[in-house]
Amino acid sequence: MAKIATVITNLYEDSEFTEPAKAFEEAGHEVVTIEKKAGNVIEGINGKRIKVDKGIDDVKPEDFDALFIPGGFSPDQLRADDQFVEFVKPFMDNKKPVFAICHGPQLLITAKTLDGRQATGYKSIKVDMENAGVTYKDEEVVVCSGHFVTSRTPDDIPAFNRESMKVLEK
Amino acid sequence: MAKIATVITNLYEDSEFTEPAKAFEEAGHEVVTIEKKAGNVIEGINGKRIKVDKGIDDVKPEDFDALFIPGGFSPDQLRADDQFVEFVKPFMDNKKPVFAICHGPQLLITAKTLDGRQATGYKSIKVDMENAGVTYKDEEVVVCSGHFVTSRTPDDIPAFNRESMKVLEK
Repeated sequence: MAKIATVITNLYEDSEFTEPAKAFEEAGHEVVTIEKKAGNVIEGINGKRIKVDKGIDDVKPEDFDALFIPGGFSPDQLRADDQFVEFVKPFMDNKKPVFAICHGPQLLITAKTLDGRQATGYKSIKVDMENAGVTYKDEEVVVCSGHFVTSRTPDDIPAFNRESMKVLEK
Repeated sequence: MAKIATVITNLYEDSEFTEPAKAFEEAGHEVVTIEKKAGNVIEGINGKRIKVDKGIDDVKPEDFDALFIPGGFSPDQLRADDQFVEFVKPFMDNKKPVFAICHGPQLLITAKTLDGRQATGYKSIKVDMENAGVTYKDEEVVVCSGHFVTSRTPDDIPAFNRESMKVLEK
């Protein structure tokens, strides 16, 4: 089964982490949360607290099979830290499974990994995605090149989970 | 004196609103806060609550002499609403004074007003600004074309206030 690197910090959109994580784990995959430091307790926009599994210093991209970026105001904070930007880049370069919802693609913009891709994201980042070279689609889920799954909002989570699971099953 | 349209919503960076607003008002200018609806109480990242002066339906760009966009997670939420995107555009097009700090330029990216400009902003939005056509400068304050003032973080507020005030005095 897959080991899924999940980069996340405070003000993440609660359901955009909890619901896909639950679906991944129920299917037997391992979800590893990564923030600045192992053991940090982070809090979602709606108050859900989680204890972080690993610090960014403790992990390498090659230790994981897939990348998951929940939305909210978490991705924008992560991309202010070059370590997170460098961590996510090889997943896109090596076409490993990448799942990004809502503001998740912000981190991939800063990593300069989106040029020529088809994707979606939260409405507020549409122009940023287009400026980064994305063909933006206003659809509940977009799967690009068989490995890169994006969705817009919590309402899209069922479609996001369904397509992410299909990519993991391959 | 100038009437300054200040577009702002929840999770604004407290000091990036309060300190420039205080400086503008002490110099005799009028700061008008604008959110979805007049009377709404909004809350900054650090808990400062303010009551909004005007709703976006109640105002027109031509009623104001200048535009102020405080940072934090406020600009990203405002740009998900087309009314705010359309409201800010004429200030840039008509070269009225525009003051944007931290994440403030996000709203101007979505309004497609930054191509060919010199500016700065919070580190996390650097690549978005460059992709929008900005020459990004990692400086405490950047003044473009004599009307457009940008800064990066709360530490830059003294320089931001100083240069904004110079533009208003012209």
